[in-house]
Amino acid sequence: MGTVTTRGLFITFEGGDGAGKSTQVALLTEYLRGRGLEVLHTREPGGTELGLALREAVLHSKNEIVPRAEALIYAADRANNIATRVRPALERGEIVLQDRYLDSSVAYQGSGRDLGADEIRDLSLWATDGVLPDITVLLDIDPVEGRARVTAQRGGLDRLEAEGREFHERVRATFLALAEAEPQRFLVVDATLAPEVIAAQVRARVDAALAAAHPGQASA
Amino acid sequence: MGTVTTRGLFITFEGGDGAGKSTQVALLTEYLRGRGLEVLHTREPGGTELGLALREAVLHSKNEIVPRAEALIYAADRANNIATRVRPALERGEIVLQDRYLDSSVAYQGSGRDLGADEIRDLSLWATDGVLPDITVLLDIDPVEGRARVTAQRGGLDRLEAEGREFHERVRATFLALAEAEPQRFLVVDATLAPEVIAAQVRARVDAALAAAHPGQASA
Repeated sequence: MGTVTTRGLFITFEGGDGAGKSTQVALLTEYLRGRGLEVLHTREPGGTELGLALREAVLHSKNEIVPRAEALIYAADRANNIATRVRPALERGEIVLQDRYLDSSVAYQGSGRDLGADEIRDLSLWATDGVLPDITVLLDIDPVEGRARVTAQRGGLDRLEAEGREFHERVRATFLALAEAEPQRFLVVDATLAPEVIAAQVRARVDAALAAAHPGQASA
Repeated sequence: MGTVTTRGLFITFEGGDGAGKSTQVALLTEYLRGRGLEVLHTREPGGTELGLALREAVLHSKNEIVPRAEALIYAADRANNIATRVRPALERGEIVLQDRYLDSSVAYQGSGRDLGADEIRDLSLWATDGVLPDITVLLDIDPVEGRARVTAQRGGLDRLEAEGREFHERVRATFLALAEAEPQRFLVVDATLAPEVIAAQVRARVDAALAAAHPGQASA
């Protein structure tokens, strides 16, 4: 947890579009609440009122927004979301599940858009005063497969989703390299497995972390 | 000019509120245009449409905005203003006069708000891909004197202006320390002198820089 000492658990979900992040967040939320645990579910951008306003500013801007400005706006949203929602929840001992975080920024803006992976990581750590997840679930999927799922389920692609195949291959490779560099933080799951099979792998990892944090409590 | 090689000249004006920056920008603009030179006048925040939208997002947010988020929003505005307005003008050989830049961020957010001067400087240099001014005019004034001028001229103080005296003393000390660390970039002027006396000092410095950049052209 970087510079923070908390009783809670910060779990992030990463991976390409169509990997099934929302489904896994929902399944884990249900499981943890069934165990009587407090769960906060956040996402970026837009977790706070400022985040929504920033998103509006970006979406409604008719003029050019350069990549560095865009990265800084996302970092501002993250700074506010972590400081005003995530950190207080962790300090209350809650479990925070977040759909995309630091690693998505590094993969999409750092490697995908050539702004530099180390720079984007440093920017995010400065924004959050060093908050790293306890567990990061990487749902790994071939971009072509993920894209087919998104098109089938939602019928369309957004701006990032519509980038070319090479961009998404680079994003996937970056996610896998990040996981390899921090094996203790990452759980890499094959996103083509059945949702319940993936959910069981995620639960096992989270249960182990909870047991380590609170040795007196038995798993459900 | 950091990583950029240009024919233009980037001049910033810094100093506490009530130091007379707007007056000096106006006098220098008039002088340079009188010499037939192209002058672009910019300010932050709000130099671009994105900047105005970001400003709205900050001003109209009913919820808390943490200092790091605020610093990142200003950096985003700067990234866009430099990339889309300042850098192109400098590449066309124009003279850009900007009311507040990097040093104000370091003084107000870095030292004034305890976010760390080095971190704020690095953030700004990352945002702009290393654009430093050729000349920075620091209009130095005692905060009590500056405040009296603002109250007399505008009849009220904004949020930053209304901070306590200790805050503004620290901002002034930071400006002076920055100038001492980079004597070649800074021109420090006593802001209690008559506007025309200050303007003459500024013109002399700018004329010298123009003569050095274009040895073939005589000064007006």
